[in-house]
Amino acid sequence: MEETERYKRGWEIIERVDGQAGDRVMENVGSISPDMARFIVEFAYGDVWSRPGLDLKHRELVTTSALITLGHCEPEMKVHMNGMLRVGWTREELIEVIIHLSVYIGFPSALDALRVAGEVFAEADAG
Amino acid sequence: MEETERYKRGWEIIERVDGQAGDRVMENVGSISPDMARFIVEFAYGDVWSRPGLDLKHRELVTTSALITLGHCEPEMKVHMNGMLRVGWTREELIEVIIHLSVYIGFPSALDALRVAGEVFAEADAG
Amino acid sequence: MEETERYKRGWEIIERVDGQAGDRVMENVGSISPDMARFIVEFAYGDVWSRPGLDLKHRELVTTSALITLGHCEPEMKVHMNGMLRVGWTREELIEVIIHLSVYIGFPSALDALRVAGEVFAEADAG
Amino acid sequence: MEETERYKRGWEIIERVDGQAGDRVMENVGSISPDMARFIVEFAYGDVWSRPGLDLKHRELVTTSALITLGHCEPEMKVHMNGMLRVGWTREELIEVIIHLSVYIGFPSALDALRVAGEVFAEADAG
Amino acid sequence: MEETERYKRGWEIIERVDGQAGDRVMENVGSISPDMARFIVEFAYGDVWSRPGLDLKHRELVTTSALITLGHCEPEMKVHMNGMLRVGWTREELIEVIIHLSVYIGFPSALDALRVAGEVFAEADAG
Amino acid sequence: MEETERYKRGWEIIERVDGQAGDRVMENVGSISPDMARFIVEFAYGDVWSRPGLDLKHRELVTTSALITLGHCEPEMKVHMNGMLRVGWTREELIEVIIHLSVYIGFPSALDALRVAGEVFAEADAG
Repeated sequence: MEETERYKRGWEIIERVDGQAGDRVMENVGSISPDMARFIVEFAYGDVWSRPGLDLKHRELVTTSALITLGHCEPEMKVHMNGMLRVGWTREELIEVIIHLSVYIGFPSALDALRVAGEVFAEADAG
Repeated sequence: MEETERYKRGWEIIERVDGQAGDRVMENVGSISPDMARFIVEFAYGDVWSRPGLDLKHRELVTTSALITLGHCEPEMKVHMNGMLRVGWTREELIEVIIHLSVYIGFPSALDALRVAGEVFAEADAG
Repeated sequence: MEETERYKRGWEIIERVDGQAGDRVMENVGSISPDMARFIVEFAYGDVWSRPGLDLKHRELVTTSALITLGHCEPEMKVHMNGMLRVGWTREELIEVIIHLSVYIGFPSALDALRVAGEVFAEADAG
Repeated sequence: MEETERYKRGWEIIERVDGQAGDRVMENVGSISPDMARFIVEFAYGDVWSRPGLDLKHRELVTTSALITLGHCEPEMKVHMNGMLRVGWTREELIEVIIHLSVYIGFPSALDALRVAGEVFAEADAG
Repeated sequence: MEETERYKRGWEIIERVDGQAGDRVMENVGSISPDMARFIVEFAYGDVWSRPGLDLKHRELVTTSALITLGHCEPEMKVHMNGMLRVGWTREELIEVIIHLSVYIGFPSALDALRVAGEVFAEADAG
Repeated sequence: MEETERYKRGWEIIERVDGQAGDRVMENVGSISPDMARFIVEFAYGDVWSRPGLDLKHRELVTTSALITLGHCEPEMKVHMNGMLRVGWTREELIEVIIHLSVYIGFPSALDALRVAGEVFAEADAG
């Protein structure tokens, strides 16, 4: 069944990109709205992230840039900053992205992102 | 003089990334506020874009992702979509970035970006 | 006196729509700025919410949709999610609104709203 | 095939809600990115709009409220203001929504929406 | 009657701050929604702008800073940039505000504001 | 050396405007990214804030208006609300700015700013 393939394909990418943090987010979402959780797996990951036109590393760079620019979604920002580190970006590169974005979104939003990155690093170190 | 080096360094990057579109934007800015134009060359390009931690190709990807997410700065969006094509991304990859962002910023902002991309391609084809 | 009627009319709607949560918000506002509290009662509720052109149930749907889209005003989002339940929407319908909005504002803002809705439901269950 | 059903279901809703304006938008989108057009039909309309938990009239109210709040997507705002009129809301109700939103998003964004509504009415009158 | 005083008081401030541009905006608004026009005169100008706690010059500085930060309301941005010049700010000071804001909202939004300011100056020069 | 003068000039302004709160923010920033901290001192304060075209009191008014409008950067909002009080604005004037902004950004964002102002005042009173 087509449905199942989209779901399976999506879930495989969540595991690779977001790891346990992704599991936890999806569990929380699913406990309030199983349909919303299914749409994220099937559409966001199964349909879009799985497309061949851009690799996972660049998709995570685009995702994190968007979340830093949006500014008000810290839990998702954290998941995808962690995702950046998981798919091969270094901590230095993540900070470089934040410095670069300060030109385009202003320093306050960039400083908020820097603080979130600091928390991501501290949690990883406390591991 | 330090000042001059920052300016020269910044201008070299504008030329490489934005080409004539960059020239035109900087001229327009300079005709209203030469100081603002100088800050963009010295700080945005001379200080930030010139840093070694991320190459120009990825800086332009981050920049365009931020501008598509902001949504309301179409002239700048156009300059940097053109910039993406200049530093080595393909039209297909730019569209893939827009499709990917629809997950994170919603379809209306993504559709606006797609329309702007269509204009960028048409202008390039018209030469 | 006209002034008093606008105030009285506004306060009656706050009581009906927001209940005790509205009382608490207005008390907090009033303790810092009584004038701001008065403007909210007189203008927002007395002038606008009391107009006949749209009933309270639809006004609360529009309000909550706007707050979920704004994204960064969680205390107000909570008051009006509670308001939706008070004026006759079900929990399932509130979640349906959030799922629907994910198409227009992206999944991260929708996920934040879903988390806030989960808190609203938990607080209501805890009574 | 599941895929085809989602697409067919989505397209039926676009026809009912957006009419010819929807056709034109989807054609424009499809001419730049057929995949993006397909995602909008399949996911936005086929998966989400077609759900039973909220009727089309209320989905269009939520959609338009979100677009007015976002502020920068005028072409989409226009399509869905037209959609509101098509699914049974009156011009007076649409204006009432805009007046109501001025409380939550401020007068400038509301005034922009009012201007767009004026254009929608004028185009409808010109037939 | 209290109502009439609020309206009269508001309209006097619109005349002083926005001049003919204010007249034109209010006429346009009133032609689509007389009630919305009345709320702007009574509440925005009659209740808020007329308060003694901050003078007109500083209120217009705060207003224009907010509109530049919002980014997507160009017609209103134009009215209030004109307003700044009318209540005593110079062109140089308006540009200085835009340069200052580039630190807090990023260069793209600041560049859009600079372009709008350039149009305001050109229209004033054309008389 | 030009570099050192920009840095020294910037740091002097941070001390005057933000006091100990500024020190603490810059320390936090510097512990994650010394380069980002340096850019804020050199560019934001050394280049922009130090310009003669607008005095510190008005720059802080513009800054705080922008941060209240952005809405999602509470730590920075707090620093600059404190800054407003340090450069000569009164608590009443800060609240007046928030009331004024409710017209332009809507009540929810204004209410969030009012709550942050209440925290700033309470912390100042607690000494």
